[in-house]
Amino acid sequence: MSIARWSETLISTLRDDPQDAEIPSHKLMVRAGLIRKLSGGLYTFMPLGCKALRRVEAIVRQEMDRAGALEILMPALQPREIWEQSGRYDIMGDVMFKLQDRQKRELALGPTHEEVVTLLAAAELKSYRQLPRTLYQIQTKFRDEIRPRFGLMRAKEFIMKDAYSFDRSWDAADESYRKMYEAYLRAFARCGLRVKVVEADTGAMGGQWSHEFMVLADSGEDGIVECDACAYAANLERAERAFPELEPYPDSDKAPEQVSTPNAKTIGQVAAFLKCPPERLIKTLIYNVDGRTVAILAPGDRDVNEHKLARALEARDLALADDETIAAATGGPVGFSGPIGLTIPVYADTALKGLRGAVTGANRVDTHVLNVDLDRDAAIEAWHDICFAENDDRCPRCAAGKLREKRGIEVGHVFKLGTKYTEAFSARFLDEDGQSEAMIMGCYGIGVTRTLQSVIEQSHDEKGIVWPMSIAPYPVAILNLTPGKPDCVEATQTLARELDEAGLDVLIDDRDERPGVKFADADLLGFPIRVVVSERSLAGGNVEIKLRTEKATPVIEKDNAALKIRQIYQDSIKALIL
Amino acid sequence: MSIARWSETLISTLRDDPQDAEIPSHKLMVRAGLIRKLSGGLYTFMPLGCKALRRVEAIVRQEMDRAGALEILMPALQPREIWEQSGRYDIMGDVMFKLQDRQKRELALGPTHEEVVTLLAAAELKSYRQLPRTLYQIQTKFRDEIRPRFGLMRAKEFIMKDAYSFDRSWDAADESYRKMYEAYLRAFARCGLRVKVVEADTGAMGGQWSHEFMVLADSGEDGIVECDACAYAANLERAERAFPELEPYPDSDKAPEQVSTPNAKTIGQVAAFLKCPPERLIKTLIYNVDGRTVAILAPGDRDVNEHKLARALEARDLALADDETIAAATGGPVGFSGPIGLTIPVYADTALKGLRGAVTGANRVDTHVLNVDLDRDAAIEAWHDICFAENDDRCPRCAAGKLREKRGIEVGHVFKLGTKYTEAFSARFLDEDGQSEAMIMGCYGIGVTRTLQSVIEQSHDEKGIVWPMSIAPYPVAILNLTPGKPDCVEATQTLARELDEAGLDVLIDDRDERPGVKFADADLLGFPIRVVVSERSLAGGNVEIKLRTEKATPVIEKDNAALKIRQIYQDSIKALIL
Repeated sequence: MSIARWSETLISTLRDDPQDAEIPSHKLMVRAGLIRKLSGGLYTFMPLGCKALRRVEAIVRQEMDRAGALEILMPALQPREIWEQSGRYDIMGDVMFKLQDRQKRELALGPTHEEVVTLLAAAELKSYRQLPRTLYQIQTKFRDEIRPRFGLMRAKEFIMKDAYSFDRSWDAADESYRKMYEAYLRAFARCGLRVKVVEADTGAMGGQWSHEFMVLADSGEDGIVECDACAYAANLERAERAFPELEPYPDSDKAPEQVSTPNAKTIGQVAAFLKCPPERLIKTLIYNVDGRTVAILAPGDRDVNEHKLARALEARDLALADDETIAAATGGPVGFSGPIGLTIPVYADTALKGLRGAVTGANRVDTHVLNVDLDRDAAIEAWHDICFAENDDRCPRCAAGKLREKRGIEVGHVFKLGTKYTEAFSARFLDEDGQSEAMIMGCYGIGVTRTLQSVIEQSHDEKGIVWPMSIAPYPVAILNLTPGKPDCVEATQTLARELDEAGLDVLIDDRDERPGVKFADADLLGFPIRVVVSERSLAGGNVEIKLRTEKATPVIEKDNAALKIRQIYQDSIKALIL
Repeated sequence: MSIARWSETLISTLRDDPQDAEIPSHKLMVRAGLIRKLSGGLYTFMPLGCKALRRVEAIVRQEMDRAGALEILMPALQPREIWEQSGRYDIMGDVMFKLQDRQKRELALGPTHEEVVTLLAAAELKSYRQLPRTLYQIQTKFRDEIRPRFGLMRAKEFIMKDAYSFDRSWDAADESYRKMYEAYLRAFARCGLRVKVVEADTGAMGGQWSHEFMVLADSGEDGIVECDACAYAANLERAERAFPELEPYPDSDKAPEQVSTPNAKTIGQVAAFLKCPPERLIKTLIYNVDGRTVAILAPGDRDVNEHKLARALEARDLALADDETIAAATGGPVGFSGPIGLTIPVYADTALKGLRGAVTGANRVDTHVLNVDLDRDAAIEAWHDICFAENDDRCPRCAAGKLREKRGIEVGHVFKLGTKYTEAFSARFLDEDGQSEAMIMGCYGIGVTRTLQSVIEQSHDEKGIVWPMSIAPYPVAILNLTPGKPDCVEATQTLARELDEAGLDVLIDDRDERPGVKFADADLLGFPIRVVVSERSLAGGNVEIKLRTEKATPVIEKDNAALKIRQIYQDSIKALIL
């Protein structure tokens, strides 16, 4: 492939962590000179970072092609009108960068491309004979993040692989989804990344169903839960839970009874005052949901999950009501709402089903109601799973296992969108009977730059990066410890040339630096295979080979080194293929 | 490499030219389904267009790497401040897209990257030991064109390869410039493009010297001149001309004499009225130049070239003066200015040097002056070559040849920038003696998307595109004329597999279409090698091979076809290497 010399490339390593970097991978990307910050959330890829990025892109491209997806390239600039046509102009809000051209036409910098690609599909895919088709691109996206951070993890400008499938039926769409899902597993594995697939919320994207590909990491911005017994795993935004039978509280058949609870405002204060456990209390929250006012009931020790609530109520717009609305709807002040006697619709968390002997607000200042039996005392419109799942909750799939909370970095996301966009843009095809039908759509994203950084987040040690063979900027670094000695130079160049001819990219550290500096830099930069050429080992006809993942530094006859290294390289690449 | 089937890809050919396309390459890119318009100046690359684009990118990347340039990737979003620091914020004007983020910070969408890269060099290149370095990227650029047109030729969003060299001395900078210049010649040649290198103006980029790489085409937006005898060629913006000795006019020794020229306003009218040739008249134009008012003299039959004028006067800002300024500076109305008696600086085109017996305005309404001898009658501050070169002008280099006007499409541009940016951003290095000096900089651009379209502008016929082998989306198309016949299918697949194994990308036209449709589409799409599999030829154990550039359709034994095609392919690729 190619031979690079340290003295002719641009590698700037730093001894100290950059001040604004909070997580290991961000620190290491800057210290190893892979990226440099231009401004908040905006980074330049330096030569080594760019090489690693191109390798991730190549793997993703190969797996998309193998899955039969067709590469295209859409513009970053998009007319405002198409975002209005899909109804997402307002939903995207300030996350979408907006600008005007010199004719005062409004444009957006694409944070994603459902609108553009569906318009394209509407124009180009007309017949069932042209389906299925999956189109993809590897392209720069823009998002005006509230708080850009963690380097490439949450940047204003980043590279995404986004793919879009168009199908003639729901079954065919499932098949397209499955192909992408499997391509993603292969692509991440080839990048040396271990991912956890979780069920996910569809959010602003809309649609039916989705999975996220998560890299487990303490620094992850996403909460996820996984079952300790079965394969269930889900984003916290979506995670369900099982509801074991409730043990009835003592004296749970008594009639409701109002009691004064002076100076007790929080759940904790009320529970302490009444000497009952917090889970015996029922929280009553008043929400505005698509213009309606509704009451939401949740166990006192649980938080309402608005993602789940919105999905349960099929709500587009959902927010806590203001004081005035609460007073009007309940007749009481904020903090003392309760379900009894309400005329607005009341929705309750499933965990409350069958609960008797509970405590609720009385819609009256400093007052609560004891001995509440929701079935008996309140009019519940519907029961839904609307609270966050928590550690030790029962698994909703196997019921036997317990849920465990983890943190994850989302590197991929696949969505079954259905007809949300194809209806909006009249992306229709003629079926075998000449009937016009909307195509069924899926969309699929990989954060390419985020994937690159996630590899480092998952694969590093105290000395630096530990690159997987497949995306290392250089799989092999040859450290010439005495670049002033002709025989060391010659041995270095011969080995480099042999590796080059065998198809490996090689970096020669030809700097006039102490061995300790070269070793430290090689560890920081994370080359999978480090070869040391020194006068001492050359005297015995040998060179030293060290793998970044191993401690041993075996010597090997220099004439066999190229063959041995090539074998290590190929075995390592093969081991990453699913 | 890969085998694609027409029935599984997305190729939309059109029979008719798109209405908004004016030039052949734009029409063909749309008709062959290589691009689709999203909005004015914004295009999506369809699968075949994307494949060709990637091939151009790969060639450019290889030639950059070979020249020792290091690939990086800089953000498209750039903070406003760095454009103010270079002094180009105002110069770029409305061509640069501007936007605000949610914190109301102003950003620009990079139309080019001198500012970002020089900041980077200032931070990373500190010592003479790190020089020379050339950094490049292949990246999306944005320009708010007044009139986007001609498809990818003048788009709002386009892909550029931009490179920047940093050197320790002017001589070293010349060497970096030479390397890029040669890499450009190789890259364009490998894309199958014939380019003409011309001397060019430096414009808003600033700097010392530059060359443009032009594709000659009637549709080109740039005027260029080339000498018919020597190698001189230049952009009209810069083109010089030689000045032959003037023949004196008769009665050229007479004293100046004012004459009334009623109703004669234009040069043509004055010349007709005075019965003298237009070139005997001297135009006097009043300009504002960086806050000064000056007079510019030009032959009556020539147009002033403001690019050359600005360079001659070392002007940053230059515009024709308004009526008031003209009246104040000359004492006369617009249209009757003349050099005699002016107190403002007067600059004259070199062609006027030694002219006697000329006619000028008299700074008085409806009045001209005869028998003018500029040396005798006017105070000329300096003589410069400030008019456009024209057909039949003498060559400024060899003086023997005549200049010829041509049209060209600029696909590449190399600039010797000097220290304009390195001074502005303190991009300094320590030399061997520990002295701090500004690096000498060069910048180098290839319009990647424009190059792709230029290939088609230069290489097409009445039937469609004629792709060079190196960037054809598929070098080989196999047309199976009877996809219903198993033996045709088998022969097609066998040949495709053999070609695939030999490293060629193959497209199989497996559509159930008439042969005429398949032939027409293959010609339109421009595959360099077309193989026809039909029942008739298969009966004789043969297939038919036709090159897009040839008329003949020789038959060849099908078992030898793969070998033969591979040979044609390799010879063709080799022929493009300089």
